[in-house]
Amino acid sequence: MTSSVTGSVLILGGARSGKSSFAEALVTASGLDMVYVATGRAWDGEMTARIAEHRGRRGPDWETLEEPLALVDCLKAIDAPGRVVLIDCLTLWVTNLMMEERDMASEFARLADYMPTAAARLIFVSNEVGLGIVPENRMARDFRDHAGRLHQIVAAKAAEVYFIAAGLPLKMKG
Amino acid sequence: MTSSVTGSVLILGGARSGKSSFAEALVTASGLDMVYVATGRAWDGEMTARIAEHRGRRGPDWETLEEPLALVDCLKAIDAPGRVVLIDCLTLWVTNLMMEERDMASEFARLADYMPTAAARLIFVSNEVGLGIVPENRMARDFRDHAGRLHQIVAAKAAEVYFIAAGLPLKMKG
Amino acid sequence: MTSSVTGSVLILGGARSGKSSFAEALVTASGLDMVYVATGRAWDGEMTARIAEHRGRRGPDWETLEEPLALVDCLKAIDAPGRVVLIDCLTLWVTNLMMEERDMASEFARLADYMPTAAARLIFVSNEVGLGIVPENRMARDFRDHAGRLHQIVAAKAAEVYFIAAGLPLKMKG
Repeated sequence: MTSSVTGSVLILGGARSGKSSFAEALVTASGLDMVYVATGRAWDGEMTARIAEHRGRRGPDWETLEEPLALVDCLKAIDAPGRVVLIDCLTLWVTNLMMEERDMASEFARLADYMPTAAARLIFVSNEVGLGIVPENRMARDFRDHAGRLHQIVAAKAAEVYFIAAGLPLKMKG
Repeated sequence: MTSSVTGSVLILGGARSGKSSFAEALVTASGLDMVYVATGRAWDGEMTARIAEHRGRRGPDWETLEEPLALVDCLKAIDAPGRVVLIDCLTLWVTNLMMEERDMASEFARLADYMPTAAARLIFVSNEVGLGIVPENRMARDFRDHAGRLHQIVAAKAAEVYFIAAGLPLKMKG
Repeated sequence: MTSSVTGSVLILGGARSGKSSFAEALVTASGLDMVYVATGRAWDGEMTARIAEHRGRRGPDWETLEEPLALVDCLKAIDAPGRVVLIDCLTLWVTNLMMEERDMASEFARLADYMPTAAARLIFVSNEVGLGIVPENRMARDFRDHAGRLHQIVAAKAAEVYFIAAGLPLKMKG
């Protein structure tokens, strides 16, 4: 159960851009053991429905974990060759870290340090949120600053980066 | 009055990205009979001014139709070989369907079913609206979800897809 | 102190996309005399911190000017061969012009007229702000319309245009 495809992947896109479907297709095509790490918390009915929809689409061949905060520890605990791990998504992780007032820079640095050492193939999905008008509220501005910084950090360590729009991938790196 | 260029086109872009101008240039260069289908309703002065500006730019060689809701019926009624139809824009159609509480999935499915059967060349213009911060109001979130789904559906059926920024096209498909 | 690289450059990107770093790398690599023109006004602590961070990153080899409004006059005053001028950023210039109720079309036209005559190499950085939901407030809508129009104008005159996401450049022209 090995693959010629190695290295981490970052998949960026807007709302309903098809980024999760693209990521899942990449994972399924890899032939590796598939693990899904959900960072989202089902804090309302809208989110619960979205998580259930994604889970139904993936089917029973995936192992599913939920980890809203300790993402790097979670990834280290399941790291193994022959495994592909889909992390969906980085923006929800950022949201959760902010809610808990964690130190963002050190959390991001831990992820950056871990990425090149991973035996598993890591596929990160994230929302690009920085292309609209500057938000009026401070927390939203901080959120998009954190998300933007994290995207730069992960993209720098990733072997491939895709930008998805209308379900179509645009390769930005790799 | 035939053209070697066939298949539908989706042109995505942000506000004032030049997407309508790009679409109009594509239409003009086709040598086909030109029809413009406006989906927007002139519900205020800002919108009226924008519609008038677009109409003035196109000039008298275009046939112009206005159809805020029954887009697929409208396209079927005017369908003919040797004709190119510019639909401007899908996001306003989505807005109008939402206002009338139509079933979005079935409306989108009708368009998807029609597209491969069209004798006319269809050029769809639409706003990418999913790359900013998650909107606080529910209707805006629903709107960008609907728009995102529709873009994926139309892109899957289109022969060519372009993303426009600063007046410049980036080919994503075709 | 000449360079084989000529012509203006437009660098578009979202918040924290890495567009300023990319621009600075382009400038540093040019081997030309480096001038930085800041269009931002430090009207609050958040902005002051951001300006200081950028200035610290650039280091002492840059000449730094601040010009919130008379951008074209400023560029003409320092124009010289063997010089590269980084203008950071166009969107803050648009904001300042709007605050002063200047005539946007004529300001933009002056810049467009100047660009092809410049002896210095001009590197413009700007925020793409038109890819989110239509803002509810009129001034924000006007702002993104002005920014979008300016991007089209500058892109048309530029030799190279880049779209930056996650720190990665996507060449759109040149």
